[in-house]
Amino acid sequence: MRYIKDIKEGDNVSEHYLCASKQILKTRVGKTYYSLLLQDKTGSMDTKIWELSDGIANFEAGDYVKVEGSVVSFQGGLQLNVRRLRKSQTGEVDPKEYVPTVEGDMEQMYQELLGYVDKIGNAHLSQLAKKFFVEDKAFAERFKTHTAAKTMHHNVMGGLLEHTLGILRMCEFLADAYPTVDRDLLFVGALFHDMGKTRELSSFPILEYTDEGQLVGHIVMAVEWIGEKIREIPGFPAPLANLVKHMVLAHHGELEYGSPKKPAVLEAVLLHYADNIDAKVQTFGRILSETDKESNWSYYQKPFESSIRRTRY
Amino acid sequence: MRYIKDIKEGDNVSEHYLCASKQILKTRVGKTYYSLLLQDKTGSMDTKIWELSDGIANFEAGDYVKVEGSVVSFQGGLQLNVRRLRKSQTGEVDPKEYVPTVEGDMEQMYQELLGYVDKIGNAHLSQLAKKFFVEDKAFAERFKTHTAAKTMHHNVMGGLLEHTLGILRMCEFLADAYPTVDRDLLFVGALFHDMGKTRELSSFPILEYTDEGQLVGHIVMAVEWIGEKIREIPGFPAPLANLVKHMVLAHHGELEYGSPKKPAVLEAVLLHYADNIDAKVQTFGRILSETDKESNWSYYQKPFESSIRRTRY
Amino acid sequence: MRYIKDIKEGDNVSEHYLCASKQILKTRVGKTYYSLLLQDKTGSMDTKIWELSDGIANFEAGDYVKVEGSVVSFQGGLQLNVRRLRKSQTGEVDPKEYVPTVEGDMEQMYQELLGYVDKIGNAHLSQLAKKFFVEDKAFAERFKTHTAAKTMHHNVMGGLLEHTLGILRMCEFLADAYPTVDRDLLFVGALFHDMGKTRELSSFPILEYTDEGQLVGHIVMAVEWIGEKIREIPGFPAPLANLVKHMVLAHHGELEYGSPKKPAVLEAVLLHYADNIDAKVQTFGRILSETDKESNWSYYQKPFESSIRRTRY
Amino acid sequence: MRYIKDIKEGDNVSEHYLCASKQILKTRVGKTYYSLLLQDKTGSMDTKIWELSDGIANFEAGDYVKVEGSVVSFQGGLQLNVRRLRKSQTGEVDPKEYVPTVEGDMEQMYQELLGYVDKIGNAHLSQLAKKFFVEDKAFAERFKTHTAAKTMHHNVMGGLLEHTLGILRMCEFLADAYPTVDRDLLFVGALFHDMGKTRELSSFPILEYTDEGQLVGHIVMAVEWIGEKIREIPGFPAPLANLVKHMVLAHHGELEYGSPKKPAVLEAVLLHYADNIDAKVQTFGRILSETDKESNWSYYQKPFESSIRRTRY
Amino acid sequence: MRYIKDIKEGDNVSEHYLCASKQILKTRVGKTYYSLLLQDKTGSMDTKIWELSDGIANFEAGDYVKVEGSVVSFQGGLQLNVRRLRKSQTGEVDPKEYVPTVEGDMEQMYQELLGYVDKIGNAHLSQLAKKFFVEDKAFAERFKTHTAAKTMHHNVMGGLLEHTLGILRMCEFLADAYPTVDRDLLFVGALFHDMGKTRELSSFPILEYTDEGQLVGHIVMAVEWIGEKIREIPGFPAPLANLVKHMVLAHHGELEYGSPKKPAVLEAVLLHYADNIDAKVQTFGRILSETDKESNWSYYQKPFESSIRRTRY
Amino acid sequence: MRYIKDIKEGDNVSEHYLCASKQILKTRVGKTYYSLLLQDKTGSMDTKIWELSDGIANFEAGDYVKVEGSVVSFQGGLQLNVRRLRKSQTGEVDPKEYVPTVEGDMEQMYQELLGYVDKIGNAHLSQLAKKFFVEDKAFAERFKTHTAAKTMHHNVMGGLLEHTLGILRMCEFLADAYPTVDRDLLFVGALFHDMGKTRELSSFPILEYTDEGQLVGHIVMAVEWIGEKIREIPGFPAPLANLVKHMVLAHHGELEYGSPKKPAVLEAVLLHYADNIDAKVQTFGRILSETDKESNWSYYQKPFESSIRRTRY
Repeated sequence: MRYIKDIKEGDNVSEHYLCASKQILKTRVGKTYYSLLLQDKTGSMDTKIWELSDGIANFEAGDYVKVEGSVVSFQGGLQLNVRRLRKSQTGEVDPKEYVPTVEGDMEQMYQELLGYVDKIGNAHLSQLAKKFFVEDKAFAERFKTHTAAKTMHHNVMGGLLEHTLGILRMCEFLADAYPTVDRDLLFVGALFHDMGKTRELSSFPILEYTDEGQLVGHIVMAVEWIGEKIREIPGFPAPLANLVKHMVLAHHGELEYGSPKKPAVLEAVLLHYADNIDAKVQTFGRILSETDKESNWSYYQKPFESSIRRTRY
Repeated sequence: MRYIKDIKEGDNVSEHYLCASKQILKTRVGKTYYSLLLQDKTGSMDTKIWELSDGIANFEAGDYVKVEGSVVSFQGGLQLNVRRLRKSQTGEVDPKEYVPTVEGDMEQMYQELLGYVDKIGNAHLSQLAKKFFVEDKAFAERFKTHTAAKTMHHNVMGGLLEHTLGILRMCEFLADAYPTVDRDLLFVGALFHDMGKTRELSSFPILEYTDEGQLVGHIVMAVEWIGEKIREIPGFPAPLANLVKHMVLAHHGELEYGSPKKPAVLEAVLLHYADNIDAKVQTFGRILSETDKESNWSYYQKPFESSIRRTRY
Repeated sequence: MRYIKDIKEGDNVSEHYLCASKQILKTRVGKTYYSLLLQDKTGSMDTKIWELSDGIANFEAGDYVKVEGSVVSFQGGLQLNVRRLRKSQTGEVDPKEYVPTVEGDMEQMYQELLGYVDKIGNAHLSQLAKKFFVEDKAFAERFKTHTAAKTMHHNVMGGLLEHTLGILRMCEFLADAYPTVDRDLLFVGALFHDMGKTRELSSFPILEYTDEGQLVGHIVMAVEWIGEKIREIPGFPAPLANLVKHMVLAHHGELEYGSPKKPAVLEAVLLHYADNIDAKVQTFGRILSETDKESNWSYYQKPFESSIRRTRY
Repeated sequence: MRYIKDIKEGDNVSEHYLCASKQILKTRVGKTYYSLLLQDKTGSMDTKIWELSDGIANFEAGDYVKVEGSVVSFQGGLQLNVRRLRKSQTGEVDPKEYVPTVEGDMEQMYQELLGYVDKIGNAHLSQLAKKFFVEDKAFAERFKTHTAAKTMHHNVMGGLLEHTLGILRMCEFLADAYPTVDRDLLFVGALFHDMGKTRELSSFPILEYTDEGQLVGHIVMAVEWIGEKIREIPGFPAPLANLVKHMVLAHHGELEYGSPKKPAVLEAVLLHYADNIDAKVQTFGRILSETDKESNWSYYQKPFESSIRRTRY
Repeated sequence: MRYIKDIKEGDNVSEHYLCASKQILKTRVGKTYYSLLLQDKTGSMDTKIWELSDGIANFEAGDYVKVEGSVVSFQGGLQLNVRRLRKSQTGEVDPKEYVPTVEGDMEQMYQELLGYVDKIGNAHLSQLAKKFFVEDKAFAERFKTHTAAKTMHHNVMGGLLEHTLGILRMCEFLADAYPTVDRDLLFVGALFHDMGKTRELSSFPILEYTDEGQLVGHIVMAVEWIGEKIREIPGFPAPLANLVKHMVLAHHGELEYGSPKKPAVLEAVLLHYADNIDAKVQTFGRILSETDKESNWSYYQKPFESSIRRTRY
Repeated sequence: MRYIKDIKEGDNVSEHYLCASKQILKTRVGKTYYSLLLQDKTGSMDTKIWELSDGIANFEAGDYVKVEGSVVSFQGGLQLNVRRLRKSQTGEVDPKEYVPTVEGDMEQMYQELLGYVDKIGNAHLSQLAKKFFVEDKAFAERFKTHTAAKTMHHNVMGGLLEHTLGILRMCEFLADAYPTVDRDLLFVGALFHDMGKTRELSSFPILEYTDEGQLVGHIVMAVEWIGEKIREIPGFPAPLANLVKHMVLAHHGELEYGSPKKPAVLEAVLLHYADNIDAKVQTFGRILSETDKESNWSYYQKPFESSIRRTRY
């Protein structure tokens, strides 16, 4: 495959890319043209279609497209001028080439997650977790590939899975370290805490907040979802149902971060910290990876209210 | 009825009261006795049962009880020493005599509220509102008599109804005054915004946060409840469902006051203000009613971050 | 009239516009030229005068000017190059064509406002309100056409009048709804609360904070002004004078928003809310009117700490 | 004089004291009696009048009274039981014996203050300052003996004068140290900044916020007052008037401390700091004087968000 | 041993206790007596010495004393009236009986801590850690038995050791889980982060902030201490020295919690979280242990800004 | 000397400048060139070296360089194209021509500072101050020329000295005005409070935070430094050592501004205010000097949360 990062001025390009955005514009003389942003996992490229001829098939933002064109230099950047374009067909493209993806193997990671599901001893909680992660295939598939955030941390394909797994491992350590912790409740909280994001954010390649996501938010969406599944489980104790919902509701830790309740059980306190740690480690790494290799210090970083530094001495 | 506010030292009392609390204690010499708080709508009275004889039937806090005893003065206050006690029977007591109640007629107020339900033009919203306020008799009954708060404002029987009605009237004014407002959505938001309190707080006479109330909170409880009813209405548009939930979620106005979302539609902004105004007016009135009649100024009041003053000149 | 929004490249223009700003600059070779911003109610236009010949009469920013020139395209925008310019004469221009104006009829709105003045029963307060709105013609004229804010809400000619009227209507509703409210004090507070803005902000067409506005602020300016008029009314009770001043002082609701006192009487609490609601509704509408018609959601809006959404479903 | 701090159980007392408060109460058997708080500058004493006989003349809280009675011990404290009481006559009492007073000589301090008035070079400002401190005898007298605060700092007779003088001295240093400072404006600001307190707080012996003080506040009261005097001075420049008002308005330094404007000229910034320093030094001293002499550390002190320590090593 | 919690009215007591405080007071008639607070690990007891006879030897607060006396009831509590008192001699008392102590074996815990010291690979860091925990016997002894806080969490003998160990275990997990973490720096940070508390707080039995503790604080004290030891290690790299100090400086996580720097390296971020988690778990447990066993919910808890709940369902 | 502010298009330049930054870049065709920023005290100039020939000697950012080249206009600014460049030699340049410097004579100012050192009466404090300002020549030299801040106030050569002197003068006034103040401690605090900046910030001409500065900060660095010197003074009382450190630690006044302790002694409170005043006066002056001379008002200034105004009337 011809990666965008390798394209140079003067190249002729014939390749499949993801159309990340499409604008219909007019030149000064009133002629319609398209301005596109094409992307693959290595970068993106300003693209124009000046002639809307027969060679240009119908397509929309979000489609994979096969383009043919040539690359010119314009105002200090590169611009691809397209002569022919069609939508890519199933099988022609491998989505992993077009969106950033976690490093680990997603199938293997999901198996590890199911291992934690199996460790849940309480019958009601076990049943509840399996209703999502084992029995609901569509959910499982979506969960496996979704992102954990629109920006900042784990905003890659599989990011939600990776993040959830990082938290589960930490929760296992914490349950081992502090014997008063209820391991089952903690695991269920970790598994469920961000699953509302599969509906709050649309999937790759186009990452947008959904209307429901903006109006209701992933925290309350997850609580409703959990409530629905619980109603399908006969004899699920009401106090336990409330505790599970509370784990999700309180995991942002502070009202001003969108949790309508402060953590009131120890497991909710711990889940909040585990979530925070995993997100901060990932954000820290991402910032340093974007910082000049020569420099120990990054620019000022709002999430850390400080410049951050490589640990190098 | 013999009201508590009228009882004096030396009186013999034989009356029904509400037992608001019951503690089992031991004297220094190790003898068991009961310490009760009996109340009616006019006040409460420290009560002791020193001899647990046959005359003292089984009862618990929250029961209405018929007591016989005599009143003594103890450490500057009055104390009722009980000789005989039994639980009151249905029909012997009128709950309104035992808990503070709104001034207006609750039936009439509920009819006024139903008038607003009738004004909802959108078929889906109308159906949804009726599922609660018309068809669900248990809900309607509970809503009619519930309190709007544990302390501070409208914490009387019927307070939730009175508060909801006050907001509905203001919402009608606002919808008339500002033509861009969606009247139906605003009315539904007003009707639903505090209905979770019927489950967040236990009913009179014992006013306590329920476990669900503390773990989940009335806002999210209401959203789940609304979601359940909506699923029973075929063809209810998803965006409308999200908007209705948003009205309830955002009505506290600020994340730090427990709303997981800030108001994002005009109706949510207005509902938040109407709620605030009605609560503040009621709180203002209550504080002044407890302030010395001679004095224009109250003590410092935290909800207003100021002393408050009668408008007298 | 030739509106700015309709002007195109290549046009010859001969029209009256408002000169919103005038800068005297030098080209690289040291020749003096003028850079102007001309505006009408439909927009504004970058304008240059390259040759300061006899055809260019004296004028200043804030003047209406008759210009003749031709329109060229420059760096993606339009530029008017002026050949002749003179100040417009009285009668040649209608100010309403040059500044944005409220939709309603200002005279009619002012009559409605006077209706509220007439409803004030208390003789002292009635006299006081009339001293401003009836007897002080200059004030009345200025109040009628002034803006309520430099940016954000009601920042159009007549905006102060429209805003004050919106609040008066709401205050009337509130006084009807809550019988403990002192209607007279509330009306007077509503009438006076923003009148300091007529001196805090200079008038259209040039909207700037005055020196007094920045050093003293419209709130305290209004209080001083009220004090002066009160001294002209024999027997005006001191407590009532203080209450009227308090209404104005406290109407921003919070110390950090510039009110040196928190609302301490119920009418001050209500005025604060009514002010807030009317401003928020207007701001909400303005943001949505500037948002892409296709999109339900605006960009993030600081005054609402959220994106805001059209109520469409 | 027989000081309260020297009175012991069993004493017979016949002395003039200040009646700081008077309550009319009833015994259990329904007999009316008075409960008083008598004070002198050394302390206060619980006082009762059990028999309202001919020996007890009319009096009110705030009066000086001559009492005769005997001292008993009651619940771990002393109680004066009064047999005879009459109001003191002019000349019988020296107010300085009854309220705490600054250490320095108030007349001398006022002369020093007038020295600063004389240093004001600008004719308009000089005239303005003299209108208050020289020409308005009632004001001067009241200013001389008033307190600077109800609690915390300089809450003694003459405290306002002492505080103002401390600030004037610091302002003189600052004007010497930083040549860009306008000395006249700074002095006038220092002289006027707290003068509203003479009307915000009632005078000794009864120290209470007045109605005007609570509704309007000493800052805005002073601004109005200054405005009135300025109107009596022909040709007083408007910008200068606004600057003087701004000095007073901004001297609390932060909106949340009740200043409706942040300091915007250098003199306002400096006045704010000088005010703060003088108040903090006085508060610091008062706290340490109330702290056990053996101990270096006080208890936690809210105004310093810390325990504070004697500088002893 | 006769524990304080078992003492009853009428008992004669002859036992060793810790004198936690001693006040010299006078009766009304002017006779000197002592008021003491005696404590053991089960509680404390109000104690009086009315007669300062030969039987009462010299002693101070902080001494262990052998007392003989009898127990009376006074104002609803017990009071020990002492007839004879002498200081206890070495060997007569076991300090563990007099102050609360961690459950685990302190020697064993300290060995586990030394195991972490041994895992430090970097030669400079290893040398530095050993200078404190291995070579400085006095420090080691003090560290082993010290408390981690004056109130709230781990405020028992050995609490600092237990807390440090809890954090070390978590840091090991985190270093395993996130490969970019510098394990050596993280371990050193964990070992050192609270060691300043051994000088900030005096030791058991009298737990007080020292003068240095209040003026300088344990964070900066530790940094100075580390600096001194580092100067004894030839060739210790300056950047590494700064990183170690930063770990300690930043571990409170926020400036407003007394850290003069925000965490700027990943290890500092993680240490802050590990510290927080261990403290919160311990505090959570302590609160629940003090909450009525019947009740799921505690009272409102400031550190959690919520009531907290047992995880019971 | 040919100052940068006087250079025009077309000039040939042959002069010494300070190379403030140096970047090695590549043209589109892959040829290496240098992009420099040259500066003197009057400004800075974009500079390019297109041909890396023999005429271009080795140099780095921070060097003074002799350049020859010609000035062209590029994208609206001037650009110096260099033909020849060599490092300047000692004696060829006077650093004061290249970096902004305080107006006063630095030697004279330092003598004034030493005068304050001489006024310290306490023998230990005197010895301590002299160890830095008299005996440590390298320190003295560095202190004399250092800046007090990277931006905002006193960010010129000698700025630290000027700022420290300003504070010392104010401290002398305060010690005179308030007799309870410990003059010696206050002077020592003033002398030491910002001396850590000599190591926190690298010297002119390149002003950067050092690694130690970012990780540890000037406050704690100074405390360590003071501790080291104190250990060289036999018999320095421990409480006094702690007080001196506290003066430095607390001088930012608030935890959120990086002081790990709030001021707890009066001298620390006063030092904090004196520091603040001197910095604010300087910042105020700098902003006004950068504001259009015609205008009384600056733009909004974050450090003052306001626009600021010239005192002109």
